[in-house]
Amino acid sequence: MKDQAILDRWERRAEWPLAAVALMFLASYSIHVLAQSDRTAAHISHLLGVASWIVFTIDYAVRLWLAPNRRHWFVRHLLDLAVVALPLLRPLRLVRLVILFSALQRAVGNAIRGRVLVYTVSGAVLLVYVASLAELQAERHDPNTTIDSFGNALWCSITTVTTVGYGDVYPVTVAGRIIAALLMIGGMSLVGVITATIASWIVQRVNEAGSTARELTAADIAELRGEIRALREQLNGGG
Amino acid sequence: MKDQAILDRWERRAEWPLAAVALMFLASYSIHVLAQSDRTAAHISHLLGVASWIVFTIDYAVRLWLAPNRRHWFVRHLLDLAVVALPLLRPLRLVRLVILFSALQRAVGNAIRGRVLVYTVSGAVLLVYVASLAELQAERHDPNTTIDSFGNALWCSITTVTTVGYGDVYPVTVAGRIIAALLMIGGMSLVGVITATIASWIVQRVNEAGSTARELTAADIAELRGEIRALREQLNGGG
Amino acid sequence: MKDQAILDRWERRAEWPLAAVALMFLASYSIHVLAQSDRTAAHISHLLGVASWIVFTIDYAVRLWLAPNRRHWFVRHLLDLAVVALPLLRPLRLVRLVILFSALQRAVGNAIRGRVLVYTVSGAVLLVYVASLAELQAERHDPNTTIDSFGNALWCSITTVTTVGYGDVYPVTVAGRIIAALLMIGGMSLVGVITATIASWIVQRVNEAGSTARELTAADIAELRGEIRALREQLNGGG
Amino acid sequence: MKDQAILDRWERRAEWPLAAVALMFLASYSIHVLAQSDRTAAHISHLLGVASWIVFTIDYAVRLWLAPNRRHWFVRHLLDLAVVALPLLRPLRLVRLVILFSALQRAVGNAIRGRVLVYTVSGAVLLVYVASLAELQAERHDPNTTIDSFGNALWCSITTVTTVGYGDVYPVTVAGRIIAALLMIGGMSLVGVITATIASWIVQRVNEAGSTARELTAADIAELRGEIRALREQLNGGG
Repeated sequence: MKDQAILDRWERRAEWPLAAVALMFLASYSIHVLAQSDRTAAHISHLLGVASWIVFTIDYAVRLWLAPNRRHWFVRHLLDLAVVALPLLRPLRLVRLVILFSALQRAVGNAIRGRVLVYTVSGAVLLVYVASLAELQAERHDPNTTIDSFGNALWCSITTVTTVGYGDVYPVTVAGRIIAALLMIGGMSLVGVITATIASWIVQRVNEAGSTARELTAADIAELRGEIRALREQLNGGG
Repeated sequence: MKDQAILDRWERRAEWPLAAVALMFLASYSIHVLAQSDRTAAHISHLLGVASWIVFTIDYAVRLWLAPNRRHWFVRHLLDLAVVALPLLRPLRLVRLVILFSALQRAVGNAIRGRVLVYTVSGAVLLVYVASLAELQAERHDPNTTIDSFGNALWCSITTVTTVGYGDVYPVTVAGRIIAALLMIGGMSLVGVITATIASWIVQRVNEAGSTARELTAADIAELRGEIRALREQLNGGG
Repeated sequence: MKDQAILDRWERRAEWPLAAVALMFLASYSIHVLAQSDRTAAHISHLLGVASWIVFTIDYAVRLWLAPNRRHWFVRHLLDLAVVALPLLRPLRLVRLVILFSALQRAVGNAIRGRVLVYTVSGAVLLVYVASLAELQAERHDPNTTIDSFGNALWCSITTVTTVGYGDVYPVTVAGRIIAALLMIGGMSLVGVITATIASWIVQRVNEAGSTARELTAADIAELRGEIRALREQLNGGG
Repeated sequence: MKDQAILDRWERRAEWPLAAVALMFLASYSIHVLAQSDRTAAHISHLLGVASWIVFTIDYAVRLWLAPNRRHWFVRHLLDLAVVALPLLRPLRLVRLVILFSALQRAVGNAIRGRVLVYTVSGAVLLVYVASLAELQAERHDPNTTIDSFGNALWCSITTVTTVGYGDVYPVTVAGRIIAALLMIGGMSLVGVITATIASWIVQRVNEAGSTARELTAADIAELRGEIRALREQLNGGG
């Protein structure tokens, strides 16, 4: 019990530092892709990447060490281990940025629709940016590629996530196509969230407009109570 | 308090004149893009543009002058200042046309779904028209462009906003792509509003079809009240 | 009053014959577009077209003659006049086929979602078929066209209405683009109706699953009523 | 009655074996398309296909034989006959895999939204895989084809089902276009299910957040009941 409290406190206190390290990782990846020919930049990118990896590993180790039941914690946090150990899952470190969205959301207010929209829009922007980087890295050395600059990669991501797909830029490599497929799924969810938020708003407004029925019932209950009270007073007066 | 009332009255009275000036601005921009080679038309377009700018500036100045707390008003209306001062934000003047939509909406009736649809459709038409103009202006001088006439620009906007994206016409410049991206976001919202409106209508109809439950409760309450009344009469008779 | 009843009876009795004539018109248009090089077919198509026009004109004239207040009826049915008089609006005669859908719908049952789906799917199939014919007629003589057969026109309509838009076939003429734009709007509505129907179904199922709250209230009311009844019996017993 | 019970038991016991045979059929079809040039593989594929056909035919015959009213059962299960007899409808045998999804769903839990999502996602993955095989088979021998490998066929299916449609790969044969059209319809339904699930979730959350009204009514009822009880006690005390 006490150990659980210490672990919780660690996780709460580590939220913001880990978000900062996630941003550092994002910067490292951006420099790696966008300034690849510059040797100093490549060096900085490498350093930032290693530093962020070390911090995430330390965080994992501390949490494992603080866990009341380590075996149990280990089994339930296999994904955390994978994010630290497998290079392919490194982008999942960006999930730590969710804490930034929640700060943004606090400015918008606490309503459910606003919260959903903030997370969705922030997530979509982050997804499009990271996917553009990954797309560029995967595609730029292919001889048939149409994605030869970050601008084109960004344009490709945007036309993909909105399911427009002009076909002037499109991935040709396997890695690029997998990234694009993830973007398409993201785009379908994005349309879903936008539509659902609007639908929920309209349904609520229509219900509010037709709420005479509910108010009538409230009035009925008030009247009922009034009549019972009158009955009691009558009894009191009669007694 | 009194000053606030004067400001409110000014804003209410300025609604229609400002909508007219926004239309003038739209005409000025249309002429500017569509009749660019004609010197007289260019002259007229320039005059209309300057005139609309002067009116918007005067409106801003009067509202600032009438505001009870000018510093407060200035801070809360920075966007209004930007619309007047920054050439890039000039299209936002068209927001004044919303008053035209509201007139259109009055014809449709006051139901929420009708109102949402009127604003959405009017907004979409305006967005497609203005985006086509901007697209044409941004793209027509690029050597690789496929958007070389207003017809093609309009076709590009329509295929973009509906997320069809054949790929026969598509933007190639940075400005053109930004405009197209705005259209895509507009298109996703358009799908959202159309879907949400239909969904809300179906949900309401289904609820109405299954409304026996509600009527039953109302009958129950009536019965309850009847029984209490009978109780009082019984007491009265007994007393 | 009596005249109105006669007009209503005429309209009810004319429903099925007019649907048959609308089918005849559809056949005429299909032959006109698909068998244009065959002289006999062109002749048949022309005859069917004229015959359907005559029937629609007679129906319009009879309804105008039967109307209790002819001036009033004329003003409120200007669209009917336009469908008869203007060649461009001839496709609107197909609206008469709605009676066929309603027969189809009777087989499905009377539930709101089923009805909406039947009308939408039938309407979408009809829209895609007619739009393919119109697309083919508009495009096939253009030198840059990709729509040179009914198969390609149908393929173009399907990729447009589902907003996929590969870009292997696409309209190039103004008429073809207007038809395609109508298909896109139809496609957005189709997505809307499909989504809305599923959403309404899920919302209803979720509500049914969580309906203990409602039943509890009904139980409360029954208990209330029981207590009042007990009170009355107590009074009766005491009296 | 007793015969019906035997038929039901047969169907329940045959569920898992038939799912296994459906998987065998899927393997047979995959080998047939993907390893067509290999003679041994073609032989194995043929054997698996025939074996699965025999099992499905036996199942059909046993069910017909066990049915209490054979004529009635035959008429109501014409589709089952068609799936066994017509080669074109063979892919419908994969419907037997639904039992696998239901096992998957048991892991997710029994909530309606979760169940709908499991069926939809499993169905979409299966649809995309089978459609890619069919697309490849239909297209690969056409001289104008862009679908010349399983990778390209999968890419074509994914861009189609998400309605992105870049246009770098697209079907050119009639069979390929029919398959693509089915995928588009599947894609529209997929968007519909995703949106509807999110919408239902948001609507529920918003309702929960605004549930003070409901609780207030419950409190009112409790108060009412309390007052009636007080009345009874008063009567008891007075009596």
